[in-house]
Amino acid sequence: MKTKKISKVLIANRGEIALRIIRACKELGIKSVVVFSEVDVNGVWVRKADECYPIMGDPIAAYLDYERIISLAKKADCDAIHPGYGFLSESAEFAQACIDNGIIFIGPKPEHIALFGDKMASKVAMREVGVPMLPGTDEPIDNIEDAEKIAIDIGFPIIIKAAFGGGGRGMRIVEKAEDFKEMYESATNEALRFFSRGEVFIEKYLKNPRHIEIQIVADKYGNIVHLGDRDCSIQRRHQKVIEIAPSPLLNHETRRELYRISKKAMYRLGYESVGTIEYLVDQDDNIYFIEMNTRVQVEHPVTEAISGIDLIQRMIQIAEGDQLKFMQEEIHLRGYAIEFRINAENPKLGFVPSPGLITNYLAPGGPGVRLDSMAYTNYQIPSNYDSMIGKLIVTALTWEDAVRKAARALDEFLIEGVPTNIPLHRQIVRDQDFIDGKIDTGYLDTKLQHFNLDAIHNMDDEEAKMQHITAVIEAINKNNLNVRH
Amino acid sequence: MKTKKISKVLIANRGEIALRIIRACKELGIKSVVVFSEVDVNGVWVRKADECYPIMGDPIAAYLDYERIISLAKKADCDAIHPGYGFLSESAEFAQACIDNGIIFIGPKPEHIALFGDKMASKVAMREVGVPMLPGTDEPIDNIEDAEKIAIDIGFPIIIKAAFGGGGRGMRIVEKAEDFKEMYESATNEALRFFSRGEVFIEKYLKNPRHIEIQIVADKYGNIVHLGDRDCSIQRRHQKVIEIAPSPLLNHETRRELYRISKKAMYRLGYESVGTIEYLVDQDDNIYFIEMNTRVQVEHPVTEAISGIDLIQRMIQIAEGDQLKFMQEEIHLRGYAIEFRINAENPKLGFVPSPGLITNYLAPGGPGVRLDSMAYTNYQIPSNYDSMIGKLIVTALTWEDAVRKAARALDEFLIEGVPTNIPLHRQIVRDQDFIDGKIDTGYLDTKLQHFNLDAIHNMDDEEAKMQHITAVIEAINKNNLNVRH
Repeated sequence: MKTKKISKVLIANRGEIALRIIRACKELGIKSVVVFSEVDVNGVWVRKADECYPIMGDPIAAYLDYERIISLAKKADCDAIHPGYGFLSESAEFAQACIDNGIIFIGPKPEHIALFGDKMASKVAMREVGVPMLPGTDEPIDNIEDAEKIAIDIGFPIIIKAAFGGGGRGMRIVEKAEDFKEMYESATNEALRFFSRGEVFIEKYLKNPRHIEIQIVADKYGNIVHLGDRDCSIQRRHQKVIEIAPSPLLNHETRRELYRISKKAMYRLGYESVGTIEYLVDQDDNIYFIEMNTRVQVEHPVTEAISGIDLIQRMIQIAEGDQLKFMQEEIHLRGYAIEFRINAENPKLGFVPSPGLITNYLAPGGPGVRLDSMAYTNYQIPSNYDSMIGKLIVTALTWEDAVRKAARALDEFLIEGVPTNIPLHRQIVRDQDFIDGKIDTGYLDTKLQHFNLDAIHNMDDEEAKMQHITAVIEAINKNNLNVRH
Repeated sequence: MKTKKISKVLIANRGEIALRIIRACKELGIKSVVVFSEVDVNGVWVRKADECYPIMGDPIAAYLDYERIISLAKKADCDAIHPGYGFLSESAEFAQACIDNGIIFIGPKPEHIALFGDKMASKVAMREVGVPMLPGTDEPIDNIEDAEKIAIDIGFPIIIKAAFGGGGRGMRIVEKAEDFKEMYESATNEALRFFSRGEVFIEKYLKNPRHIEIQIVADKYGNIVHLGDRDCSIQRRHQKVIEIAPSPLLNHETRRELYRISKKAMYRLGYESVGTIEYLVDQDDNIYFIEMNTRVQVEHPVTEAISGIDLIQRMIQIAEGDQLKFMQEEIHLRGYAIEFRINAENPKLGFVPSPGLITNYLAPGGPGVRLDSMAYTNYQIPSNYDSMIGKLIVTALTWEDAVRKAARALDEFLIEGVPTNIPLHRQIVRDQDFIDGKIDTGYLDTKLQHFNLDAIHNMDDEEAKMQHITAVIEAINKNNLNVRH
């Protein structure tokens, strides 16, 4: 059952995910077309696509200009658009505009993108289909009496958040009831000062929960499978840094419950395409919905590694109207996979982005190593986008083996010319808590206080090695054969 | 149960397999030491090892000088030696010398290496433990009467081979009985002329059988598992070029029989470590033993890919005295893997080796792609060794997906400065017989007559792409935004 075969896809994205989608298209025998900004003219994915079109002007706006993108797609005879992640991927308007122009949007239906783009509406919808929520207020509160009653109902610790703010302003964690009044005044005053609105939300506060998410794949005919869970607890400023499949310490019952509620919710909502439901799991294994991502995620490769299933290819085939080729019981998850985001940023200078010229690039290889990277020797990283230049994914049959493989592969990874976060990853995979799988959303902040960031170095010590080799060569030339390093 | 923990391994090999063993050691927390010839001083594996020792003089002899290698191992406090493949890997003498010097030889027992190094003795031994043989003579024949009787017994077609020769001299295929006498005279006369001995062997002749081999892993305690089969039918002059796991068209009963007889033979012989039993399977699915390889093989990664099991790590742990960590029923073979040997050789000039300087090296990546390669930009390939510089291994859940992935990855693979066999691989993965899994040992010879070797080119057409991109850049500079390629 295939409603419409896609023959040419426009990729409305850049970098490693554009390359990833090109690879999926090539393997499906589908032509790929990219649009690119003026600063991305040297992007390796631009060369790898079958066709490429520049979009001049602001380098970020280029990837958001959806009228131009749709008009280029029509001009190039593309019958579909893949949005990747970020940029237009969660724009219901864009998805609808594609459909209105007779172009297949490779992703979910616009109504689902719109629903899950609205935090409040998505919570209501997910609660209705049986997904547990973090206890808290749905509506802004504007008086201390209601606020205190709600806080006591929820049970301490709670968190007060400015209803019309962000960035931590007007946010207070309240550990016990006697502190509530003072904290409420302080939060609302700050909210008023910064946002001119004093209303707040109140939610249960979770101390260092784990971030666990479930990967869903659903076709147009109500066939839905999960491809297991991912643990994305290792974050810095709410940005994922390392992602793992499956979560190393999640207990069996919690995992089953996550699978069950996620699939049930997607059935009830009639979701289609790939999607990820994100949860927090607290230290007592309570489950709380955070949000649903209606697109492919940066960390999708760890799921591909343990399932063997190509998520981008399946997305395309679902958009073509294919039925899922596998039922739940035919999916065999095997081993553990860990993804390390490789960012051009300086761990010694507060992780400031460090775009520039890569003067030397030697990637790791061998068994269980996957690289999704836009980097190569002589690549000039533009300064206009986020700092991620690639992803290293390692896979092994056990968690212990995966961690050891990660250390080996990270040690092999050589990027010269720009600082990267590889040295940070090297420290993490040698940290005993990480090795023991003891990770939560507080892990990285805590560890960053203890890691000696100045001492972060190449554990493989390439430079020292090269000095030794040079000595060996000199010794050979001198015919002194007994050199050793 | 571990008799002796290995802490430092000397690797008596070079190139991609040395790098492969270093990676396994690193993942096990074991130090690695390499010896290297003067022409291998720039080998990337030399840098990646923890220690390295030059062996001066003839670049091949360096890797065969086992007294010197054992003395270096002792000097460097190595408690074990891994021989890789080729060089000393199938020398029973070397294995025994390691043991006599108190060094663990990472491989089978010397008596098994000796047994399987002797073609005749190994056939006798394997026949005794129930492995089917190609019908033929065990002893040289020196008169036409016996020869003809044997030929008729075996049944035509048969092949006559000079008992004391090689290289195709004194070899004749006889299709029917009435041709026998003439062919026998002609074979023995040629044998006499070239080798001064006219004796011959007579064997059943198989027309284009498949080369199927079974991977065995066995510990010191009689625990033996197979890790499935590999199809290595695609050969050029008896050199494997492409290897596949599992064989795409092998029927279920034949596969089961191969597993059964291989495991049984290894139990009966008390084999330990990894090993491969090679068979020919004819067009009626008859099975015939060829030989047993008592070492890790070049093509081991395809088995690792479908099983998830690291064969080199298991070899090391078996040598340490570990019990196998998995029973047969705990091994889950998943999907299909294809390995392409990347050789620096010129397909347009009869595959002549083409050592030289790699001026540009861009490896493929993304899902299901593994690279075991010693190549990098600015690597000078020495002319002293065989022409293999790396291996590309692709894995997918189905055979069709694996073939499409192979085409995609091969198209991405860019090696400049020296000719390679990548363009040949690109033609093979687009050949309908290959796509249909219809391969046998005659496949490549036949196809090479039909492939247009002059037309072998980069299917991805990087050069044409770069011209287009250059045009795009020029157009941007001229502010002509409607360029398309």
